[in-house]
Parts: sequence; C-alpha cells; structure tokens
Amino acid sequence: MIDATARPWMTGDAADLFAMATAFFDREIPANRERWEAQRCVDREFWLKCGELGLLCASIPVEYGGGGGSFLHQATIQEAYARHGDRSWGNSMHSGVVADYVYEYGTEEQRQRWLPKMASGELIGALAMTEPSAGSDLKAIRTKAVRTSRGWLINGSKIFITNGGSADLVVVACSTDPSKGAKGISLIVVETQAAVGFTRGRPLEKIGQHGADTNELFFDDVLVPEENLLGEEGNGFAMMMHRLPQERLIVGVTAVTATELALSVTTDYVKHREAFGGPLIDKQHIRFELAECATLAKVARIFLNECMATHLSTGLDLPTSAMCKWWLTDVQCQVIDKCLQLHGGYGYMTEYTIARLYADARAQRIYGGTNEIQKELIARSL
Amino acid sequence: MIDATARPWMTGDAADLFAMATAFFDREIPANRERWEAQRCVDREFWLKCGELGLLCASIPVEYGGGGGSFLHQATIQEAYARHGDRSWGNSMHSGVVADYVYEYGTEEQRQRWLPKMASGELIGALAMTEPSAGSDLKAIRTKAVRTSRGWLINGSKIFITNGGSADLVVVACSTDPSKGAKGISLIVVETQAAVGFTRGRPLEKIGQHGADTNELFFDDVLVPEENLLGEEGNGFAMMMHRLPQERLIVGVTAVTATELALSVTTDYVKHREAFGGPLIDKQHIRFELAECATLAKVARIFLNECMATHLSTGLDLPTSAMCKWWLTDVQCQVIDKCLQLHGGYGYMTEYTIARLYADARAQRIYGGTNEIQKELIARSL
Amino acid sequence: MIDATARPWMTGDAADLFAMATAFFDREIPANRERWEAQRCVDREFWLKCGELGLLCASIPVEYGGGGGSFLHQATIQEAYARHGDRSWGNSMHSGVVADYVYEYGTEEQRQRWLPKMASGELIGALAMTEPSAGSDLKAIRTKAVRTSRGWLINGSKIFITNGGSADLVVVACSTDPSKGAKGISLIVVETQAAVGFTRGRPLEKIGQHGADTNELFFDDVLVPEENLLGEEGNGFAMMMHRLPQERLIVGVTAVTATELALSVTTDYVKHREAFGGPLIDKQHIRFELAECATLAKVARIFLNECMATHLSTGLDLPTSAMCKWWLTDVQCQVIDKCLQLHGGYGYMTEYTIARLYADARAQRIYGGTNEIQKELIARSL
Amino acid sequence: MIDATARPWMTGDAADLFAMATAFFDREIPANRERWEAQRCVDREFWLKCGELGLLCASIPVEYGGGGGSFLHQATIQEAYARHGDRSWGNSMHSGVVADYVYEYGTEEQRQRWLPKMASGELIGALAMTEPSAGSDLKAIRTKAVRTSRGWLINGSKIFITNGGSADLVVVACSTDPSKGAKGISLIVVETQAAVGFTRGRPLEKIGQHGADTNELFFDDVLVPEENLLGEEGNGFAMMMHRLPQERLIVGVTAVTATELALSVTTDYVKHREAFGGPLIDKQHIRFELAECATLAKVARIFLNECMATHLSTGLDLPTSAMCKWWLTDVQCQVIDKCLQLHGGYGYMTEYTIARLYADARAQRIYGGTNEIQKELIARSL
Ligand SMILES: Cc1cc2nc3c(=O)[nH]c(=O)nc-3n(C[C@H](O)[C@H](O)[C@H](O)COP(=O)(O)OP(=O)(O)OC[C@H]3O[C@@H](n4cnc5c(N)ncnc54)[C@H](O)[C@@H]3O)c2cc1C
Ligand SMILES: Cc1cc2nc3c(=O)[nH]c(=O)nc-3n(C[C@H](O)[C@H](O)[C@H](O)COP(=O)(O)OP(=O)(O)OC[C@H]3O[C@@H](n4cnc5c(N)ncnc54)[C@H](O)[C@@H]3O)c2cc1C
Ligand SMILES: Cc1cc2nc3c(=O)[nH]c(=O)nc-3n(C[C@H](O)[C@H](O)[C@H](O)COP(=O)(O)OP(=O)(O)OC[C@H]3O[C@@H](n4cnc5c(N)ncnc54)[C@H](O)[C@@H]3O)c2cc1C
Ligand SMILES: Cc1cc2nc3c(=O)[nH]c(=O)nc-3n(C[C@H](O)[C@H](O)[C@H](O)COP(=O)(O)OP(=O)(O)OC[C@H]3O[C@@H](n4cnc5c(N)ncnc54)[C@H](O)[C@@H]3O)c2cc1C
Repeated sequence: MIDATARPWMTGDAADLFAMATAFFDREIPANRERWEAQRCVDREFWLKCGELGLLCASIPVEYGGGGGSFLHQATIQEAYARHGDRSWGNSMHSGVVADYVYEYGTEEQRQRWLPKMASGELIGALAMTEPSAGSDLKAIRTKAVRTSRGWLINGSKIFITNGGSADLVVVACSTDPSKGAKGISLIVVETQAAVGFTRGRPLEKIGQHGADTNELFFDDVLVPEENLLGEEGNGFAMMMHRLPQERLIVGVTAVTATELALSVTTDYVKHREAFGGPLIDKQHIRFELAECATLAKVARIFLNECMATHLSTGLDLPTSAMCKWWLTDVQCQVIDKCLQLHGGYGYMTEYTIARLYADARAQRIYGGTNEIQKELIARSL
Repeated sequence: MIDATARPWMTGDAADLFAMATAFFDREIPANRERWEAQRCVDREFWLKCGELGLLCASIPVEYGGGGGSFLHQATIQEAYARHGDRSWGNSMHSGVVADYVYEYGTEEQRQRWLPKMASGELIGALAMTEPSAGSDLKAIRTKAVRTSRGWLINGSKIFITNGGSADLVVVACSTDPSKGAKGISLIVVETQAAVGFTRGRPLEKIGQHGADTNELFFDDVLVPEENLLGEEGNGFAMMMHRLPQERLIVGVTAVTATELALSVTTDYVKHREAFGGPLIDKQHIRFELAECATLAKVARIFLNECMATHLSTGLDLPTSAMCKWWLTDVQCQVIDKCLQLHGGYGYMTEYTIARLYADARAQRIYGGTNEIQKELIARSL
Repeated sequence: MIDATARPWMTGDAADLFAMATAFFDREIPANRERWEAQRCVDREFWLKCGELGLLCASIPVEYGGGGGSFLHQATIQEAYARHGDRSWGNSMHSGVVADYVYEYGTEEQRQRWLPKMASGELIGALAMTEPSAGSDLKAIRTKAVRTSRGWLINGSKIFITNGGSADLVVVACSTDPSKGAKGISLIVVETQAAVGFTRGRPLEKIGQHGADTNELFFDDVLVPEENLLGEEGNGFAMMMHRLPQERLIVGVTAVTATELALSVTTDYVKHREAFGGPLIDKQHIRFELAECATLAKVARIFLNECMATHLSTGLDLPTSAMCKWWLTDVQCQVIDKCLQLHGGYGYMTEYTIARLYADARAQRIYGGTNEIQKELIARSL
Repeated sequence: MIDATARPWMTGDAADLFAMATAFFDREIPANRERWEAQRCVDREFWLKCGELGLLCASIPVEYGGGGGSFLHQATIQEAYARHGDRSWGNSMHSGVVADYVYEYGTEEQRQRWLPKMASGELIGALAMTEPSAGSDLKAIRTKAVRTSRGWLINGSKIFITNGGSADLVVVACSTDPSKGAKGISLIVVETQAAVGFTRGRPLEKIGQHGADTNELFFDDVLVPEENLLGEEGNGFAMMMHRLPQERLIVGVTAVTATELALSVTTDYVKHREAFGGPLIDKQHIRFELAECATLAKVARIFLNECMATHLSTGLDLPTSAMCKWWLTDVQCQVIDKCLQLHGGYGYMTEYTIARLYADARAQRIYGGTNEIQKELIARSL
C-alpha cells in the first residue's frame, strides 16, 4: 500500500534527524503552544534549545556553526515540526530563508559574523520585502537606502514581517536606485539592536497563527554599515526570485503536513463521535467526505514527494514550484474546511486542533507569493 | 435595476425602525466592538440601551413590554445590526428565540413574569439544547429533569450556549422521560440568579465571533419551581422544531448581510489598491472574481427576500427554510473567502473587516442545525 | 410552500397561452423529436402548425400577423416548449430575436413584407453575427457589405448560425465601414431564396442539440436590395447590444426549465431504482446530491422570476441580465451533471432524458455571449 | 523540469513498444476514426492488424500467442492508443480484462482454446456483469445459469456491454446459486457464434464514445458446455473483485492521457485564436484557467505514475486504486470542461478534438465501478 505519509526522500541521516526532532517537538510544543499564542511569539529560550539540538541552520556548513546538511535536512525539520499543526516558530524564515541568503550571497566576513549566532539561536532572522503599498508587486517598494559616507541610510517601512517582533537580523529589500525598477533593488542587513531609528509595531492581530510574530517595521533614518549590503547592489530582486522555488516547497511541506493532520484527527473524531444511533462514520455523507479528503491528502503527498525528489536531485523548475505552492495550499484549505465541518460545533472551538488548523491555514494561499501570482508564473511557461 | 440590497418586505414602520436602529448601531458598534471582543461579551449596558430604544423583543405585544411588532420587525433589527458585520450581540437568540418561546408557549403568568424584563434588557435569555454528546441528534440529550415535590431537579450539562455567560433566563431542553425519546423532552426555564447548583464554564474560545459569549453550562442538582415548565411536558421537541423555520431565516439574514458587506468592502478595496501599474480591479481575474461574488450576493438577496415575503404572509415551509439556511450560509462562506483573498495580506489581519467576516462566518454552517441536517430535511420532502 | 415551478409573472392570458402551448407540445414533441434529431432540423410543417396556433411572433402586433402580446407571451411559449427538454426548434431566435428586430428597427414596408410570413411560419428567420474568426469580439467581423448602385454587395461568411440551414430571412451583421469599428457595423436582411451567391454548409455536428440546425453560411458577391438595410447604417452594433438583456432572459428560461426537468426525472429515477436492498434515494449521498440540486433549482427559479418581473415592468438592467445568463446556465450544467451521475450507466444513454439534457446544456454557457463576457459586463458595472 | 508527460515506469522494451504502437495508431486512427464512429464500432480488420502487430494480449505468455509481457505492456499500449483521444477500440476490455481472466482463472484447455485467437484478433472478448436492474450492486444480478446434463442453461440479459456488438467470447457473470448471494455467482464463457438463443440489441446510443460498441445482450435458454465455466463455481464475485485494481489503473491511464491531450490542444488553440486585439492567451482569465488545468494535469500524471510503479512492483492496494479511479476521472472531466469553454463555439462542434473528449469523458465516472462506489471502498479502509 502507498503510505500516505511516506516520505521516500527522507533517507539516511535525515530519518534520524526526523526522529530526534520529532521527539523534541512532541515534548516542547504541547507544553508551550498555548503560551506562545497568548504572548504572540515563541520564547527566546525555545530558539536557543533548538540551536543546541542542531535544529537551526541545518543546511549551513559546520564551519559556520550549521548542521552541515542540505535542503533535505531543513525540509525534514519542517516536517517534524509541522506535524503538530503549530505555526508559531518562524524557523523556515530564519533558517530556510535568511541563513541561506547569508550563506549563498554573503561575503566570508558576513557569514562568519552572523551564521554561528543564527545557528545557536542568539540571532533571529527575518526577511522584509513587503510594504504597506507593495506586496505582489515587489518592484514597487519605496523603502529607500541611500549610500552615504557613514553607510546606508534607510527610510521606509515594511509590513507583515514574520519574526518581525523578535528579529535581530532583518534582511531588508530596499530601493537603491528607483530609476532602475527591479534592477534597482538591493538587500541590506539591519542589525536591529544597533539600529537607531528602527522601531517595530505591535504584533499584528491575525485570524490565526497567533504564536507567530508578524510585525510592521519602521525605518527612520536608520544608518547601517556599508558592509551590510548582501550580494551585489541592484541584484536584490534576482536573488529573491532565485530562492523562491525552494521557499515554495517549504510552504508545500507545511500544507501537506497540515492536510494529513486534519485528516487524521478527523478520522479519529468521526469514528468515536456518536449520533443517531451509531458513530458518525456510519453516515454515508461523512464517509464520502472523508474519502475525498483522504484522496486529496494522498495525491498531495505524492506530488510533494516528487517535487522534493526532483529538487534534491536536479533542482525544481519554477513553474512546478508554483504549482506546488498554489495547489497544495488550496488542497490544504479545502480539506481542512471539510474536516472542520465534520467536527460540528467543536470544529469552531480553538481548543480543537482542527479549529486551529483552519485559522492558521488561510494565510498559506497569500504569503510566499499569492496563489494568483503562482498562476501567472505557470501560465507564462505554457 | 434590481438593487442588490433592496428589501422589498421592509415597508412602513419597519423602514422607520430600520433607520432608527441603523443610526444607533452606527454609533455604538464601532465605538465598542473591539472592547466587546476583548472581554468576550457585550456590555450589559448595551442591552439596557437597546431595551430603552425598543430594539429588544420587537415581536412581543406591548402589554408585555415588547415592540408590538412581528417577525418583520425582528428581521429588520437583525438587518440593521448585521450590516456592521458584528456578531457579538445575541439578540436573535434573546428576542428571536427565547422571548418568542415564552410568548408562544408560556402561561400568562410566565409572560408577565419574564417578558417585560426581557424587553428592557434586565433579563437576558438563552436557549440550551446542545450537550457535549448530543448536538444534531437532539433527542439523545441526557440532561435530566425529575419532578419532585420541591419542583424540577435538573442534572446535566449544556455546551456552546449563546449568551451562556450572561443569561439570566435559560430555556433548558431536558429529558423528563427518557423512555419516550423525542416525546420525552421538555423545556424548563432556569432563572440563573436563583439557581443553586448552576455554574458556567469560561467563555469558549472560538475561531471568531469573539464578542459573543458562548459557554458551557452545568446543572448539578439545580432545583427549579414547577411552574417554570414551558409548554406541555414532553412537547419540547415539537416546540423547538416548530420554531425552526423562522430561526433559519434569521441565520439567512445574517448570511446575506455579511455577504453584501464583504462585497462592498472588497469592491472598494480593489478599486483603490494599486499593483503593477494600476488598481487591482484592472486585472481581469480580480474583475471575474468580483463579478461572481456580486452575482451570488444578488441571487442570495433575492432568494432571501422571497423567503421573507412568504414567511410574512403565509409562513415559510420547512424544506424551503432549510434551503435558505444551508445555501445562504454556504454562499456567505464562499464569497467571503474569495473577498479575503483579494485583500492579500491585509485579508488575514483582524483589523480588516473582511478578516473578521471570515472568522465569524464559519460557525454559520454549523449552528441553527448543521447544513448537513438541512439537506436531510430537504431530501425528505422530495 | 414556495412552489419551485411557480411562475408568478405568468398571469392572465399568458396562463391560457401556456396551457394551450403545453397541450400542443405534449403531443408534437414526443412524436417527432427523434426524427428531428436524426434529420438535424425540425420539419417545416412544424413551423407552419406553430404559426397556425399563434405560437410564432407572439410579441408582434396583430396588424402584422403576430400574437399581439409582449415579451411575456414569448417567454411563456419558451417555458411551455422547454419543459420537454427539446432544443430543436429555433423559435427563440426566429420570434424572439429576428421578428423583434424587424418590428423594432424595421421600416413600415419591411414590417409588412416580412412579419406576416414570419408569423405564419412561411419565412424562418436567423441572425448571423458570428464569423469563423470573430465571436465574442463582434466588432472584429470581416463580412463586408458595400453599397453599390444595384444594392448591397455582401462578401464573407458566418458560422454557428441557428436556423441557418432552413432560414429564409437572415439578418446579417456586416461591416459597412471598416474604419469605424463598432460604429461601422450594419444589419442587412438577406432573403435566401433570391440570393445568388449565398450557400450554406452542412449542418454542423454538435455534442448535442442535434435537432437544431446550426450552419455555416457563405456570402459570395451576394446582392441585396438597398432597402434591406435594417435600421440605420452604422447602428448595427448598438441595436444588437440593446436587445441583449431580453435574449439573455430567454437563455435563462431555458436554463431553469432544463434544471427543473433534470431534477424531476432524477427524483423519480432514484425513488424507483433499487440497489443494495432498497431504492437509491435511501442512500444518504444520493439524498444530499438531490437536496443540493433541489435547492439550486428553486433559487434559480426565484431569481429568474424576479428578473422576469423586473423586465416586464421596468426593463432589466444590463448587469443583472448578465448575471441571469451566466449564473443560470452554470447552475443548469452543474445540476444536470449531478443528476446524470445519479442515473449510473443509463445517464450516458441518449435514450434517457437526462443524457440529452446533458449534451444539450453545454452550449448554453457559450452562446448568447459567453459566460466570460457576461462577467466582464458585470465587473464594469461595479 | 518535471515533464508532465514523462512516464518513468515505461522503460526498456515498453518504450520500444510505445514507439511502435504510436506509429501505428498515428496512421490508423485519424484515417478511420470517423467511419468507426458512424458505424458504431471499429472494423474487424483493425483487430486483426493489431493482432499481427502484437498489440493484443500483450501480457499473455507467448506460448498462448500473447506478447509475453506484463501489465506494463498493456498499459503502454493503452497510453499510445489513448493519446489520440479515441475511445472506439475496446482493447482494454478484450486484452486487459477478458484475456487476463482466461489466463489467470482458466484451465489449460481453456487457455489453449481461446487465447491464441484472442491474441490474433480472431476472437473478440467482452465481460458481461451489468444487468438492467443490477449495476453497482453486482451481487443482485438475476441472469441464471443452471447446470444441466447438457451443460449450463443460461437465462437473463446484460446491458452496457463493451464490445457487446462484436464479441465472440463473452464472460458472463451468472447466478448459479441465488441462495448464496455474492458467493453464488460464477463466470461462464459464452461463445456467441455457437450460442443458440443468444441475441444482441442494437448498439446503444450514447453521449459519446460513438465508435465503441456498447450493447444489450439477451440469453434465452442458451446452452453452454460445462467446461466453459471459468474458475470455480461460486467464485465469480471474488475473481472480479480481485482484478479490479488493475482495471481501475487502466481507466486512470485513459483519464490522464485525455487530460493531457485536452491541455495540449487548448494551449495551442488559445495561443493562436485572436480576440480583442491579441491572442486569447493574453487575457488573464484564460491564462489562469490554463494554469489550473496544467497543474491538475501534472499532479494527475505524477499520481498515476506512482500508482503504476507501485502496481508493477508490489501490486496496488484496493483503496489507492479506488482513489486513482475516481480522482483521475474527476480531474479529467473538470479539465476538459474548462478547456472546452476556452474554445468558444468550436468547443461544441464534434469536429474539434475537445468536443469529442468532452462527450467521451462523461462515462469514465460511471463505469469501472462508479466514483461513488470507489468512495465507499476508500472509506471502508480508513
Ligand atoms: C502571515 C503572513 C506572513 C508574512 N510574512 C512575510 C515576511 O516574512 N516577509 C515579507 O516580506 N512579507 C511577508 N508577508 C507578506 C506577503 O508576502 C504578502 O502579503 C503577499 O505577497 C501579498 O501582497 P499584498 O498583501 O500586498 O497583496 P497585493 O499584492 O495587494 O494583492 C492583493 C490581491 O490581488 C491579487 N493580485 C495582485 N496582483 C495581481 C495581478 N497582477 N493579477 C491578479 N491578481 C493580482 C493578489 O493575488 C491578492 O489576491 C506575510 C504575509 C502574511 C499574511
Ligand atoms: C457559535 C455557536 C453557537 C451556538 N449556540 C447554541 C445555542 O445557543 N444553543 C444551543 O443549544 N446550541 C448552540 N450551538 C450548538 C449547535 O447547535 C451545534 O453545534 C450543532 O447543532 C451541531 O451539533 P454538534 O456540535 O453536536 O455536532 P454533531 O451533531 O456531532 O455533528 C458533527 C458533524 O456530523 C454531521 N452529522 C450529524 N449527524 C449526521 C447525519 N445523520 N448524517 C450526516 N451527517 C451528520 C454534522 O452535520 C456535523 O458535520 C452553537 C454552536 C456554535 C458553534
Ligand atoms: C449551438 C450554437 C448556436 C449559436 N447560434 C448563433 C446564432 O444563431 N447566431 C450567431 O451569430 N452566433 C451563434 N452562435 C455563436 C456564439 O454566439 C459564439 O460561439 C460565441 O459568441 C463565442 O464566440 P466564439 O465561438 O468565436 O468564441 P471566442 O470569442 O473565440 O471565445 C473563445 C473563448 O475565449 C473567451 N474569451 C473571449 N474573449 C475574452 C476576453 N476578452 N476575456 C476572457 N475570455 C475571453 C470566451 O469566453 C471563450 O471561452 C452559436 C453558437 C453555438 C455553440
Ligand atoms: C460506456 C459504458 C460501458 C460499459 N461497459 C460495461 C461492460 O463492458 N461490462 C459490464 O458489465 N458493464 C459495463 N458498463 C456498466 C457499468 O459498469 C455500470 O453502469 C456501473 O457499474 C453502474 O451501474 P448502474 O448503471 O446499474 O448504476 P446504479 O448501480 O443503478 O447506480 C446509479 C447511481 O447510484 C449510485 N449508487 C449506487 N449504489 C450506491 C450506494 N450504495 N450509495 C451511494 N450511491 C450509490 C451510483 O454511483 C450511481 O450514481 C458500462 C457502462 C457504460 C456507461
């Protein structure tokens, strides 16, 4: 039988890592999730513990303090984490995006300065692209960085920034040459503790993902050393685009894991809940809904596995990564919506896993490039 | 042109009532909604103000302190209220259900004892049918009321009770003769202040509708005077069924109003939000999504109007009321989901109306009889 | 109870007309449908019989041989006819479009020349707008009409023309001034019997609607008397647009009637078909599918009724007519698809009504302005 | 890039077979398809040609005249054939079902008697399970076979039998012991030429698949030699169930191939069709529709590939085969419906591939076990 949750790509040391991470999350998440949600962020201690265990920066070489693995190991940790249906911990942004950016585009000096502390959890990373008036249309950002004798002078604001409330290291997409459009965008690292003129808004109140800190960031004449430019000036847009397929795969991992979790708690629920003289699963409508959800979960997993295998061997092409992002998050929302309904009134109570999955899921069709933007990308490739 | 928001049934004094209520809600809701949500219930003062203005018990004759109107007036108030997309105020339960029950099934003594204070807002009402292990299958309830020399002795618990945290008067569905199934269910009014052994759980945490108090209620040897029986013993199930078409219409009013609100804030949003060199509405996909939403909103309104007109003249039949409930709440959720997406990241932030509409909407397919139960009812009539 | 098939707008003499027409169609259609489908058109005799009975040109004044009624009577005849699920007879094109054009835009001379024979069935009408390379984008048509001393000289071709194989009178949309775009389009009536250079292709083979003759028409130096220009030169586009809301309503009538027919034959079917120890309707999935279909059928009917009532009193606005067209045909296809499935293998056999309804329905989302074009129109009005 | 049409399982000699078969079908199908459809069956000569080329009975050992391959080779031939979107040739029934039954369940004598002629195309096979009043509920069949001294005496009728008009060898599911339900069903081979009392109805008229002969078969005191019993008496139901996963995979192959064909002709169409000043693909709605279709086509192919690989190595489990059947045929119908719409009026004309794909597709959700029955099977496994 094809096992819906089999992950054939997760072999060798990745399987061990999965077991270790799973044991850790099984202990930590149930014990803390509620508090994280109430305080609107995970504890700094949690990041440090993760650092100790090697759960941060898994794909960064050991000489920079990382796990010495590859995307395989990052995805593995994401699978282990996402199985709890928690969305508080911004590691995919921290390790999967920011650390990878620093490693791939950074100078030797930058790598040594930031990566070891990112790997230990002392520095938390964020990537700030979106602005109040520019999201999908990234090249329309207005945050400006001007090169001065004292370094880069940054003015502007960013919104919806994951890890925004706690980040020590923010990779900021800035317009360094407004006349050049996409080619005038550069990435500059702001070290928040040292940054005069940098402020954060209160955590944004969201429909779900309450434990994730999502913030507005303000830059008011913030001065940043010249050497904090990441990669080449004017190359920011290209760098961000280049990394997208992998980031979309991580969204896909979250989507499929959440889908499987929804299916599993719901199957369990309808087998035990009684109504009209027998368990709910005796009702044909319930059986059919569940059969449809089970099918989608399995097809989604198989599709993800294939994308993962391709990415790990030859790199996933852009249109397929776009398919992976939009379709898997769509399936996630559809399946979770059906599963919630099967819980009746309990499905609306956040004490129940399915309710949290529902509230958390809705953002997935929006960030990482909205699903509409993915369709544009696919269409262009036809 | 057919005006999507025209309500041809809202004529005469109902139109005046609508204007008055609208003015009141336009003032009160924006000023208080956030606090209500934070404290998980509306203020008692708000109920009293509503009472003063005649917004409570609109369909109860004036001799009992009511508005002297009919269902028309209740629906009118619900329209005026729902236009804000707020779901905190449990008036449809208080006036539309509990007061109507007391009036329709109560003795003269009961009417005089409870209705004037319900109309003034001094007493808040709730209806407690659902139990932890019996929702759709109402006749499986286990809360027992035993007739003793000192009155009814009630034991059991109820869950998901709207107004449960603040209710002074709870109509409790009890099994008074377990051997008789549906015919052994009776309605008994518990006056909470006097009820020793009655306790409430903390407000249940929900995906949305945060300002509505939804509670678990516990009855531990609660003694209630014999004269608190509402209607005839053993007739509870029939009484509840009889009132359902009207209650479903009210759910429909909320659904259509929320749909229209979603459409209107979203149309506005995409006309003003710029991306890729022009307003979002210039993108064909956005236009098509909006066109579909506008169509559904209009069809939904026309269907509701027809049901309302029928109900006000000859009474709405059971299968059509079931169609009204399931289809309108389905449309509500579909339209709101699309509209949220068109807001991008903002759609996920509860500061935005669309995000609250989204979180609030999901319960509508569950309460008032789940949409699955409605389909059963319709099918039986074919 | 709201009766799903009630047509409150069909009052007075329309109700009598409905009864008479129904009796006629009940006799004629079952007796002939199969032959019509095999020969790919209805018999000329059928047109003549209809003429005798007053079923043609119902909205044309009696002085021109018409029924002296209004759109109400046309719609009534369409309801009576469509109840059989037959799509062979092109009367909505003949009476509802061509005769109305002649009456509304024609000169007195033209009215007298053509209308009486159209009313008797001696002349069959068609409207030829679409060309092989211009459908939705009507103003891109290339068929040219050049004014010469001997009249209009027409060259070009038309495709998908209903009644194209039998039409005696074809209203042809021609470009009379290519430099003016939409304002260079004129309508010219071609009397096919006299038209040298006019030829027809074989009936086009379609998925369904086999009894309807849909043809390609070729105009090779066809000379037409100057006085065959309908309305003003250059006004063709505007005239066609002006008539569209009403034409869309007729598509809506067909859609709703077909939906109701599907529901009724299917309800009947699943009550009588046995499987697994009882009638199909005992299976919950079947009940739910049917309940959804019944709901859509009722909502669709109510929406259509409202549009009809509005059109008959004040005229239906363009965006609502577009909603009527796209949504009702979408519902038609959805409901019929579900109903076909409930018939199992029989659903695929054209001997069964549901199979024919399925094959016939698919065109409805395409002609009369594709459903995509309707959404553009709605969006523009927001 | 993941190639949507890649079939990683089709390796080695299967790839050669695919090339050979493709060349053959590329020649034969376009040249004959129209005639096959008109005459409601393929030519006997076509079967013989296929036999010569080794396209029949690919999985039957060479000693019985077969191709000596496995299911891999059958699936390969099906892929090559289905790429044309033709549905006339009933080989998947002939080779994939009947020949496999004979080989797997038959005696040595039966194998030698029938298989060589099936492989050459001299004998065409059919499987007759469904009856006018028993389809999904197979164990309710009424066709009776009574053991007599002269052999089996068969009475009853079968309906919707693929290859029914031309079959020489019909495997008939008979009730041999009505008292035993499913365990009283046996398979008996009727050699039609010798069968007195055996008659066929006219080919059933269907929505599509016009070239496939689907017939009703009548058995009126048909005498069949005792040795024509296939497998053990009373084991018929179990034998049929056992073969189902593989038959569902073949339906899946057809579904995915048709989906890919629809996508490819439509992409081509919208790139070349002009409207409103540019090709259709410039319109965003069209791009999005196509992007969704492309995604579904790719996900479907990947899912099928995985099922195929599993089946070829360890055998596909029953619930996954059910997912494969229902989901892939659902996707097929969805994608084709969207693609048809993008063709405008041409989409409704059977001259166009997309129109034929549409008409042909609808049966796929019905035969091979209806999609509802698949959902039951999946649900039971949860
Ligand atoms: C929980 C959460 C976390 C986030 N984390 C981060 C983060 O860490 N860093 C960061 O930089 N950003 C982050 N984002 C922002 C996210 O990337 C953006 O919200 C997203 O890119 C969409 O941008 P927008 O919100 O400006 O929407 P808009 O771009 O304004 O889009 C609004 C709607 O229009 C649609 N649309 C836009 N353009 C077109 C078009 N051409 N055609 C058709 N439709 C179009 C969109 O699909 C959407 O439906 C986060 C967002 C959320 C909700
Ligand atoms: C916000 C909120 C407010 C509420 N307010 C009140 C209130 O004021 N008073 C009150 O008494 N109750 C209230 N309820 C409870 C509500 O009425 C019940 O939740 C609802 O009736 C469903 O019951 P349940 O939760 O027990 O679900 P269940 O009955 O356990 O149903 C679970 C799922 O199974 C489905 N199902 C059940 N039976 C069948 C069947 N035979 N066939 C197919 N599917 C079936 C249901 O549709 C549902 O999807 C409220 C609920 C909510 C969420
Ligand atoms: C059975 C039948 C009967 C008919 N009878 C008649 C008749 O009597 N007289 C007559 O004149 N015509 C008739 N027609 C033709 C019909 O009106 C056209 O087919 C229809 O208008 C669509 O035009 P098209 O076929 O050229 O498609 P196209 O215009 O080429 O459209 C192809 C696809 O692209 C879409 N599309 C086009 N433009 C846009 C855009 N800007 N944005 C997004 N999508 C777009 C369309 O919606 C469609 O999905 C008939 C058609 C049929 C099928
Ligand atoms: C083109 C074509 C070719 C075919 N070829 C063959 C062939 O070669 N040999 C052969 O033996 N048969 C063949 N069939 C028949 C096919 O297998 C049956 O049509 C199919 O199994 C369904 O049976 P039925 O038609 O009797 O529908 P029914 O069993 O009467 O089902 C009617 C509807 O009820 C649903 N239903 C049935 N039971 C339940 C339930 N318990 N719960 C919920 N829903 C239920 C079904 O899903 C279906 O939607 C063919 C059919 C077609 C259309």
